Amino acid sequence: MKVEEICQKAKVASHNLAACSTADKNAILEKIAAFLSSNRDKIKEQNAIDIEAAKLDNDLVLIDRLTLTDSRIDAMIEGVKQVIALPDPVGEVVESWTNSIGLNFTKVRAPLGVIGIIYEARPNVTVDAAALCLKSGNSIVLRGSKGAINSNRALYEIMRDAISAAGFDSNAVGFIDDTSRESSKELLQQDKYIDVCIPRGGEGLKHFVLENATMPVIASAGGNCHVYVEKTADLNKALDIVFNAKTQRPSVCNAAEHLICDKAIADKFLPACFKKLSEKDVEIIGDKEAKKILPQIKLMSDEDYATEFLSYKMSFAVVNDVKEAVDMINKYSTKHSEAIVSEDKFSQEYFKKNVDAACVYVNASTRFTDGFEFGLGAEMGISTQKLHARGPIALKELTSVKYTIEGNGQIRK
Amino acid sequence: MKVEEICQKAKVASHNLAACSTADKNAILEKIAAFLSSNRDKIKEQNAIDIEAAKLDNDLVLIDRLTLTDSRIDAMIEGVKQVIALPDPVGEVVESWTNSIGLNFTKVRAPLGVIGIIYEARPNVTVDAAALCLKSGNSIVLRGSKGAINSNRALYEIMRDAISAAGFDSNAVGFIDDTSRESSKELLQQDKYIDVCIPRGGEGLKHFVLENATMPVIASAGGNCHVYVEKTADLNKALDIVFNAKTQRPSVCNAAEHLICDKAIADKFLPACFKKLSEKDVEIIGDKEAKKILPQIKLMSDEDYATEFLSYKMSFAVVNDVKEAVDMINKYSTKHSEAIVSEDKFSQEYFKKNVDAACVYVNASTRFTDGFEFGLGAEMGISTQKLHARGPIALKELTSVKYTIEGNGQIRK
Repeated sequence: MKVEEICQKAKVASHNLAACSTADKNAILEKIAAFLSSNRDKIKEQNAIDIEAAKLDNDLVLIDRLTLTDSRIDAMIEGVKQVIALPDPVGEVVESWTNSIGLNFTKVRAPLGVIGIIYEARPNVTVDAAALCLKSGNSIVLRGSKGAINSNRALYEIMRDAISAAGFDSNAVGFIDDTSRESSKELLQQDKYIDVCIPRGGEGLKHFVLENATMPVIASAGGNCHVYVEKTADLNKALDIVFNAKTQRPSVCNAAEHLICDKAIADKFLPACFKKLSEKDVEIIGDKEAKKILPQIKLMSDEDYATEFLSYKMSFAVVNDVKEAVDMINKYSTKHSEAIVSEDKFSQEYFKKNVDAACVYVNASTRFTDGFEFGLGAEMGISTQKLHARGPIALKELTSVKYTIEGNGQIRK
Repeated sequence: MKVEEICQKAKVASHNLAACSTADKNAILEKIAAFLSSNRDKIKEQNAIDIEAAKLDNDLVLIDRLTLTDSRIDAMIEGVKQVIALPDPVGEVVESWTNSIGLNFTKVRAPLGVIGIIYEARPNVTVDAAALCLKSGNSIVLRGSKGAINSNRALYEIMRDAISAAGFDSNAVGFIDDTSRESSKELLQQDKYIDVCIPRGGEGLKHFVLENATMPVIASAGGNCHVYVEKTADLNKALDIVFNAKTQRPSVCNAAEHLICDKAIADKFLPACFKKLSEKDVEIIGDKEAKKILPQIKLMSDEDYATEFLSYKMSFAVVNDVKEAVDMINKYSTKHSEAIVSEDKFSQEYFKKNVDAACVYVNASTRFTDGFEFGLGAEMGISTQKLHARGPIALKELTSVKYTIEGNGQIRK
């Protein structure tokens, strides 16, 4: 099938899906979970072809991300079951009121329509993304990467067959079986059929999608995250939070990259923090004030302030007060997750109100920015844009709204 | 000032504005209302220059839209006062919850930042748009049309002086004093400083903005709106609703263009409707079935189904049931405002659930799609897109959200 035809059929299917009950949608997902379980051999067989190809490049990281073991297939199935357990966002009444002439206004959640996903490597995204879109009443068109094409195709075929077996239009999940750059570009021009496009992958993919998409895009971005330790902070909490935010999983977007410390406590806190972080061999760099206290560290460059290290590396900067800290954050952050450690109400409030970010933490680690940790369930990423979705892109963020207005013959005077 | 400098200064001002209390923002708006009132002569003097220029082209519609009389200036001031009276959306708690490890999550409304407005003709937009943006804690950068440049500049200068007089950073309102196409394009590339762009004008402007903007856009679209009269309809209500939706103000986006009627009642309803609409000399065209009943009407073309007449012209189409009506609407509408007239619960529910539009009416005129009629106050237009804002773009739609997460030292395991 051609890209346009896949999208057009997904659009038709989306109209049926929008009218589905929660029970209908859960029945589709139950069937998908069951079919994934009974087709393990097919999945592993096709996955083996992708792994063989990856071995030729000897890319160990890629091989690990690609590999679908029985336990990873179980995790995928468990993911679908978790989506079944989540409340259906469609039909939720967001607001309702009656006006003076008796018109009843109801603002209800409605599906977006068709969501296009362009994603890299990990084949589990094929299933995760489809489950979230179907539960929120949307069709999905999948465009995965070359390295995972056989695994992705197998997972798609299993889902397609499951949707049919459940008695619904299997075009609700579309699959672009062509990993050329042209097929991506073509998909990004189907604004007639695709309502929103979501890139899932690195910065390169994100920019490619933003540049080429003719439909709206919900994009996640990297996280250049800070922990600010204010002078009234409980330094034990601060030490734990900085250590956790930096080292618990340094390769992810909600890990902290920069420590900002009030001058009044820098003499005491920075050496303690340096010592704690050395347990994990974290490389520390710092500004002039930090280097005065810790002469052994390298001076940070202007560029370092804006860098998401994504590794065991952290910068230390010293400021006079919360205002300076907030200004630094608003200048350099990617508006993802920002934390203050402080026992002072005024500083906490100032930080919460003035830091421009999706998630602002008070006395907690930035590592909690995640759909599951928020209690929202599986998500499609963390949005750092301000329009439509900010923070975890969970089920609600995959919906739009619709006003229904009920009267008994009202006309406008 | 250069476009980039104006936007950059608006961004700086937006950080202060985000930290303003409701009282602060209302004080700014009070000062603007007062300054508009005390500078009437300046407004009318500058407006007269624009009108003189428009007279050279002898464009009576343009002259009418441009002209600022005392009563129109009063209406503008009244508009600002209405915005003062509206609740402040910033800081509103959308949702809040505590998780099992004691983290308190709060989703609060926060300003978008800087909103760019590109608009045509009517100078009152200069003030309306600024008032809405300031109340929602956003800076605004205004780029009006050539025909209203002197009026717009006068209004801008008055607002700028009012903001300064209130003791705030007047860069919160920026004004591009250059009506060349290049200045628009330059504005549309300031994604570093402008968070959202909103075009206000015709389809040409909308497409220009969508094509050139590097930041997200909230766009209104025209309304190709339908009234569907189902076979159980109270035909007196139906007649009033069709007449009102078509003729009360045919030039606006929420006016109805097409009547769809069930076959079972077409013999009776179409002639009655034809007669009623002839009171206002409405030109009727129709499909084959309608023409069988009303041989005097012209047969409609495929193109007519997709046409927003915006005049005293309406099409009549005949269908077998609600499903056919909904399919026709979903095929041809611009997803703005759609109405069913019916006394049957099933048909009403089917219509509400399956029509894909911003506003779906049951037994009421489509003409109610308007911020004031909804009770939301002044608006920046009606969004027909599905992302972020759908329906009236009022104060809430000019905000984003932010999560604040408060703990007492929690770290991720």
